[in-house]
Parts: sequence; structure tokens; C-alpha cells
Amino acid sequence: MGHKASSESKFRGPQFDESFRRQFEELLKWRRDVRSFRCDPIDAGLLEHLICLASLAPSVGYSQPWRFVLVESAECRESIRKNFEHCNREALNLYSGKKARLYASLKLAGLRDAPVQLAIFLTQNTHHGSELGRVTMPETLEYSAVLAVHSLWLAARTYGLGLGWVSILEPVEVKRGLNIPDDWKLIAYLCIGYPKQDNSSPELLYRGWEETLPITQMIVKR
Amino acid sequence: MGHKASSESKFRGPQFDESFRRQFEELLKWRRDVRSFRCDPIDAGLLEHLICLASLAPSVGYSQPWRFVLVESAECRESIRKNFEHCNREALNLYSGKKARLYASLKLAGLRDAPVQLAIFLTQNTHHGSELGRVTMPETLEYSAVLAVHSLWLAARTYGLGLGWVSILEPVEVKRGLNIPDDWKLIAYLCIGYPKQDNSSPELLYRGWEETLPITQMIVKR
Repeated sequence: MGHKASSESKFRGPQFDESFRRQFEELLKWRRDVRSFRCDPIDAGLLEHLICLASLAPSVGYSQPWRFVLVESAECRESIRKNFEHCNREALNLYSGKKARLYASLKLAGLRDAPVQLAIFLTQNTHHGSELGRVTMPETLEYSAVLAVHSLWLAARTYGLGLGWVSILEPVEVKRGLNIPDDWKLIAYLCIGYPKQDNSSPELLYRGWEETLPITQMIVKR
Repeated sequence: MGHKASSESKFRGPQFDESFRRQFEELLKWRRDVRSFRCDPIDAGLLEHLICLASLAPSVGYSQPWRFVLVESAECRESIRKNFEHCNREALNLYSGKKARLYASLKLAGLRDAPVQLAIFLTQNTHHGSELGRVTMPETLEYSAVLAVHSLWLAARTYGLGLGWVSILEPVEVKRGLNIPDDWKLIAYLCIGYPKQDNSSPELLYRGWEETLPITQMIVKR
């Protein structure tokens, strides 16, 4: 890419070199939304380490509003699987013809195979951060929890782990099934495990569901 | 950390080693919400490269709903600065005593110094992705744009660039000031430039605004 990092800051933290940047770009390119997992377990220490890395994410007013729910019991997992299957059937009804056949052929969750299922919730009524930065844009609290999901996703991939974000779920039912406090909001339900295969391209792209938008269409000047 | 990446996948993409993981963790630890920038310009090619990396972020149904608005004109920048100053004065009124003095002493935006100002919007009515994955959780469209902001943030830091997310803004006024289409929603207003200094710790932590939550308080099992 040839762009050089600046080297004149006054109090300098770690600087990253071209080799790191190249690998970091590979990480962004090969991060995938994984739906097919091997059944190998994940070391509990590694999982906790990944959660610690996720909690280094930025949060508005340093509110740290993310909460991690490890879903381990067969009963809870069954409630999620039923929830997904119901919502997925309903979603299929939105499509017809070729698109419906394509939708039906997509594997949209790895709930049967993934060794780890982790739900990320937002604690909505937190006073941590004393509301700084979220008076005019209260949604930034929610966004903070999303940033933690992304940190976890990338960190997992550096260990060869895949993550799949399942959003075809009725959030109220997820909370009921997992017995979650009233003021928590579901942000993401994640399947985590070693992927059956790696891929540099999103499945929805190579299966023909959607195309990549040209970057020029996304940039506007004012 | 001592955790080993698995090495038995069938179709394997790039694997990351311990040295990369160590540096990646440094990146997460030294990413900061920067408010003090040097005035050195950012190479236009580098900026476009960062936007390309941001657009590698995950998006629900491969919807790619992020739009990048480069705010360059003096008039637009002035509207943002006024917006921020108004909202910041209002926010200060929420605090009293020691907390108010601390709030008033914090520098919460780098709108005067940062060479680049970039607003990220969500295009709300996009049919890209054909609604896949967002029927029961429509907020995942918004979350996708948030993931792009985070990708941009980390990528910028690998080049020694700092990014500051300004959320003390009235979003309706931002849209009016920048002449933004009706169906776009403001996700984040970003200042980008070379930071005056690096820091491994959030300013709101070392200035005593908020403390770090223990990780044990954030993990629940079900």
C-alpha cells in the first residue's frame, strides 16, 4: 500500500510496521461470519481472554455497558434453536422464486455444532460513565456494545476461531429463554468455534445473494 | 497468553502467530478516542485506503449500509463546531460540583485541529442484502455501520493516526448543516489526524471520570 505511518508524536506508544499492517488487513479480509464449525472445544482460559480483549473496546463516557452471557445449558440452547428455526421459517416466507430457493439453501446459523454460544447484552440503565457523550445520541450506548462484539470477532480470528452472528431471533424470546434482567437489551447472539473452512469472501457474495458495492458509491464530499 | 491457535482446518486461510497476536493486543490497548491532534495533513490516498478497509466490515445480509461523508468546507465544519459547542454547554448543566468542574476541564472534541472530519451515515432504506437477517432485529443494519467505524478506527491506528468520535452533537442539526438525504441516519462524527500524544489508558479513566469494571462483573452463565 506504500502509505507510511508518521513518526513524530511527542509521547509515542507502540508503532506498527508494514508487515503488521499487511497481516492486519488479512485479518479484516479473512474475518468471516461463520456458520459451519468443527466440534473441537475451546479452552476456557482462551475464551475468557477473548472476553477481556472485547472489553478493551471503546465505550461512550467509558460506560462499558456490555455484558457477556455464556449459554451452556441444553435447555437454554434448545430455546435459542427453536427461536431461530421459527424466525427462519417466517423469514423464508418473505421471498419467492429463485430468491426463496437460494434463501432456503443458505446455512444461516451454526447452533448445532458450535462449542460456544455467547450472547452480548447491553445494560440499558447503567449510570457508569455518568451519561457523558450520550445525551443527544443515546444510541451510542448500544453502539459501544457493538464495538465489543467486533473486537471479540477479530481477536477470535487471530486464534483461528470463527464467529457467527445469529440475528434471525426474536429478542424478547431470547431474553425469556435465558432468564435475562428486564433492563438488558440483546445486541448479538454469537456462535464461536473452529471453522470447518476459511474463506476470504462472504458466503452471501459467492453464493450470489448480494454484490459488493463500489467504494466510489459510498463516499460523498461536503 | 500461551493460547495456541488450532491448525487442523480443511481449507485454511492465513494463520496468525503469537507475535502478530501480541501486536494486535497492543493495537486494542493503544487505540484511543483522540481529542488533541497535530495539524499535519493526511495523505488522500491513505484516507481512501482506510475507507476501503472500513468497508470490509461485516454487514447484515451483506447490506453494506455505511456511507462516508468527508466534511471539508469551512461552512460545514463551522456548523458542526457550533452544534458541538451548544450541546456541550447543555450537557455541562447536567452536572454540579466537582463533576461539573471535571466535565468542563475535559477536551471532548478535536474539531479545531483535526485535518480530517468524516461523518458515517446509515442509509436506512437500502434494499441491498434483501432484508436478510434483519427482520426480527432491524437494528442490525445500524450495527453494521458501527462495525465499519470500528474497523476504520483500528486501521487508522496501525498508521499512527488517531480518531476521535464526537457524539455531543444534535443529529438533526448535523444532517441539516451537511445537507444529507432524509433517509440517512447519523452514526458517528469522526475527527482524524496524527495525535499529539499516545496513551495506553482512556482519558476518562486517568482523569478520574470513571473506573474500569472488573471482568467478573460482566460475565454471566446460563
